[in-house]
Amino acid sequence: MLMKKIASPADVKKMDMDSLKELAEEIRTALLNKISQCGGHLAPNLGFVEATIALHYVFDSPTDKIVYDVSHQSYTHKILTGRAKAFLDPTKYHSVTGYTEPNESEHDHFMVGHTSTSVSLALGLATARDIQGESGNVIAVIGDGSLSGGEAFEGLDNAGEYAKNFIVVVNDNEMSIAENHGGLYASLAELRASQGSSENNYFKSLGFDYLYVERGNSIESLIAAFKLVKDSTKPVVVHIHTLKGKGYSYAENSKEGFHWAAPFDIPTGVVNWGNGESYSNILGEYLMEKIKADPKVVVIHSAVPAGIGFFADRRKEAGKQYIDVGIAEEHAVALASGLAKGGAKPVYSTHSTFIQRTYDQLSQDLCTNNNPATILVTMSGADGMNDTTHLCIFDIPMMSNIPNLVYLCPTCVEEAIAMMDYAIDQTEHPVAIRIPNGVTHRNAQFDKDYSTLNTFRVDKLGKKVALIGLGSYYTLAEEVAAELAKSDIDATIINPRFATGVDVSTLENLKANHQVTVTLENGVVDGGFGEKVARFYGASNMRVLVKGLKKEFYDKVPYGELMERNRLTPKQIAEDVLAALKSA
Amino acid sequence: MLMKKIASPADVKKMDMDSLKELAEEIRTALLNKISQCGGHLAPNLGFVEATIALHYVFDSPTDKIVYDVSHQSYTHKILTGRAKAFLDPTKYHSVTGYTEPNESEHDHFMVGHTSTSVSLALGLATARDIQGESGNVIAVIGDGSLSGGEAFEGLDNAGEYAKNFIVVVNDNEMSIAENHGGLYASLAELRASQGSSENNYFKSLGFDYLYVERGNSIESLIAAFKLVKDSTKPVVVHIHTLKGKGYSYAENSKEGFHWAAPFDIPTGVVNWGNGESYSNILGEYLMEKIKADPKVVVIHSAVPAGIGFFADRRKEAGKQYIDVGIAEEHAVALASGLAKGGAKPVYSTHSTFIQRTYDQLSQDLCTNNNPATILVTMSGADGMNDTTHLCIFDIPMMSNIPNLVYLCPTCVEEAIAMMDYAIDQTEHPVAIRIPNGVTHRNAQFDKDYSTLNTFRVDKLGKKVALIGLGSYYTLAEEVAAELAKSDIDATIINPRFATGVDVSTLENLKANHQVTVTLENGVVDGGFGEKVARFYGASNMRVLVKGLKKEFYDKVPYGELMERNRLTPKQIAEDVLAALKSA
Repeated sequence: MLMKKIASPADVKKMDMDSLKELAEEIRTALLNKISQCGGHLAPNLGFVEATIALHYVFDSPTDKIVYDVSHQSYTHKILTGRAKAFLDPTKYHSVTGYTEPNESEHDHFMVGHTSTSVSLALGLATARDIQGESGNVIAVIGDGSLSGGEAFEGLDNAGEYAKNFIVVVNDNEMSIAENHGGLYASLAELRASQGSSENNYFKSLGFDYLYVERGNSIESLIAAFKLVKDSTKPVVVHIHTLKGKGYSYAENSKEGFHWAAPFDIPTGVVNWGNGESYSNILGEYLMEKIKADPKVVVIHSAVPAGIGFFADRRKEAGKQYIDVGIAEEHAVALASGLAKGGAKPVYSTHSTFIQRTYDQLSQDLCTNNNPATILVTMSGADGMNDTTHLCIFDIPMMSNIPNLVYLCPTCVEEAIAMMDYAIDQTEHPVAIRIPNGVTHRNAQFDKDYSTLNTFRVDKLGKKVALIGLGSYYTLAEEVAAELAKSDIDATIINPRFATGVDVSTLENLKANHQVTVTLENGVVDGGFGEKVARFYGASNMRVLVKGLKKEFYDKVPYGELMERNRLTPKQIAEDVLAALKSA
Repeated sequence: MLMKKIASPADVKKMDMDSLKELAEEIRTALLNKISQCGGHLAPNLGFVEATIALHYVFDSPTDKIVYDVSHQSYTHKILTGRAKAFLDPTKYHSVTGYTEPNESEHDHFMVGHTSTSVSLALGLATARDIQGESGNVIAVIGDGSLSGGEAFEGLDNAGEYAKNFIVVVNDNEMSIAENHGGLYASLAELRASQGSSENNYFKSLGFDYLYVERGNSIESLIAAFKLVKDSTKPVVVHIHTLKGKGYSYAENSKEGFHWAAPFDIPTGVVNWGNGESYSNILGEYLMEKIKADPKVVVIHSAVPAGIGFFADRRKEAGKQYIDVGIAEEHAVALASGLAKGGAKPVYSTHSTFIQRTYDQLSQDLCTNNNPATILVTMSGADGMNDTTHLCIFDIPMMSNIPNLVYLCPTCVEEAIAMMDYAIDQTEHPVAIRIPNGVTHRNAQFDKDYSTLNTFRVDKLGKKVALIGLGSYYTLAEEVAAELAKSDIDATIINPRFATGVDVSTLENLKANHQVTVTLENGVVDGGFGEKVARFYGASNMRVLVKGLKKEFYDKVPYGELMERNRLTPKQIAEDVLAALKSA
């Protein structure tokens, strides 16, 4: 087996063309075997096997530096840079991450996971090279889908006037995660149709030299092209046309479905997405109903439509009331603000980790204008994605301190729906709703009136200890109450509903017969909800325990361990409460 | 006088060409008179007089909706939409803001102040128009300088596939605030040189129809062009070539100097920038010294180089060690991360209000990678710019809750320099430094060791009350101490230095003989530094007063009033401390 013999890219360079092709097939098989068992970015990796081989054949990594965008397509790169075992030996499958990781290899330069960053990061390496008088090529790899992100444009524009070696490989597989959106994609199609000769050339308009490779899954063609640009002294784009999902028919035919796949059965292509309720399905159904009931409702998404259940048929059904802006979160929020100003009812949805890409638009374009757009922040909390680059635990600090924004945190699916009903139809505020990962239901009735901001609801009035369980940690509050009951403490349970402020009268009332207040939030505590409560009680006798995660870029820490580490199990919390009561 | 007769755009439409030209001259004179007395965006407004007249002549505002980017060029728009008195009558000069403001007029659709937003916001209006079956043109105005911002690209790309009326007026005055940077600008120059016929057409590559107007200060040419595109049913760019500063020779010759001008003398063009020390000058001198001393130091800026004293001569002197990326804050941070990874010593500087434009790059591109770039956050605090859109009071909540980032807050200029020395030469962390507005000096020696993170310094050890004065509010802590001394309280004064964490041992020690701790920070308290201290002391006896601004988009509130409102005068704080002591 050729794969086993590759200790470093030097071993790739020694191979003849037949061996390189054989290697590509071996890698493809290994990718299928591993990803079908572990889940992962299947289709992007299948499409970039040959390009990665050609890059390592022509360039000399790590002297020549390859910077991957998102780096979800870097599996072959890992295989060729000494990490093949992690794709061949099932016991080693989890020894590498799904993205580039400098701690794994000198061939990986950045930890990345969000899109549209590779050009800027690589230009930093190129500039550092040049001011230090070093040599070597710098190559940024970026997919066509990632080009729609503003950061990629800013990087390309700036690189376009760079007077030294800088190579951008545009991996054009005609797809973002779903289909591409944006005028740019028509001109990319023209470039493909004209073999690169169309006048409409985005890259040239930004100052790049340009080379087109139609056969982007042909190792020969790619090697020839990369040799042409190696050691170039001007910025150059190599636009390669690849096939997403290449070599696995189910992925070739369902590029979106296999962009990231849960474990699947290779012969049948059946993916095990798990069953049971998911917010993705629930949101998709709910939003479709709203769309049908009200022509003013416009659902906006940025390139991960499956995240809110907008699969292809639903997108079609929604017609003009569904807008996928592509990977362009900044535009999405500003567009929503404009839509709201114009009298429509926009609902923009994105995962917590991606809402980070649009802070200024939330603040300036939306909130200074106080336009009544609805923002759904999905997959939020520590109990979901746990890659360092995809943590969904920073949205409360980021959003809850922006004036005018109302950030609602539902405790269960019924409350999420009530909050969406409120948000979409009101006309007073920008309202964001923090959608949890796991679906929970509550039997209790809850108050659906959100018109008075920052009003908490006391669901159970006890004494001594008050537990304020924000959003998905409401159930944790209930568990802590059960734990405290063992010590004969009848704790008060509060659903705060709002992350953006405190309920002064409710908190004041607690002072009479409570000594300890505990806040529970499913995210980092630094800058978050609990600290507002701690500040409120700062000048009083009340003891406050702010419970949540310590700020940190947690790296694939299992949820249970994360809870233990942060003293977030019901038992640990109860212990801390008892200790606080003793000292009070 | 024609200006006085204009109650609404309808009055413009009645004028003949001679009158329109006369009107333009009157407006130009009024702009000069007002701005020379009040300060303001002179050159951008002078260049856009004719275009604004032509827009209102051809289109029917507010049915047709004009959305200005930044809106610093909207003075003529204000004059033509019923607000001429604010430019003619010195007693009314302050009756309008310097940006579009929906509360002033139905002709203003958004409150804006940051760049690169107009296309997305306007596309929202156009989309709302179409889904509601309304009519009217939507026109986004954007300057060439603003095109370098990622949000503008995202908006253009998305608009490029919009199938209905959508007009973008690109106001090309060949300048950003300083000169333009980016490959795009070479192709804009080609378009100008070829009267719009060059093949390299960025706008066409994004799917726009395209029209070029060389004489962008000719009312006739502009009216003809706007008539051509009025009611167009496809997205179209009208690229107009204007002269920044038009009609005032000093502004034409010093476009950057008169982009925003303090009050000036019209006959001589001498601007009264005030004298005395400024951080801008100090940073410029300091960074130039670093550049000369160390070839690895690279200063990065995003289009406001005067903000750190990088005037044209200094930019030239710095050579390759100075990079102005244009208005592209996201790219700037990612570039800095790449430079640091590559072994250089990047220093990126931008104003507090603009650092908001790059949250995800700080978090993902820089901090997950823990690369040792230096970020200077200038003009920070409430005592500087006070337009709603330019507040510099949100950076502590936004930045201090990002893991790995070290956010230092100097109390005086000497400490700012010590912190920069530390930040630039260390290789452990991304370090941001919060540069205040006003320059203060301290006679006392202070500890320049920042190697142990989150170590506070007790400058004066008293008892009962501890005052923790962060950064520029250290002097406020001193003033409060003086106030408390009148009540025979010998307060402890602490310089916390770090906004990103608390000094556990210092805070623990205070418990022994302090009953009240006061935190003081020059920014909003929500999600900020003081709340971390409140959380720390949550389970203890210590009373904590978190002092700073309540989160709000303050609109041109004078600093003194802002302090009073937030109970931030030394007297008010002392009163609150005494009350807290009494209850403790």
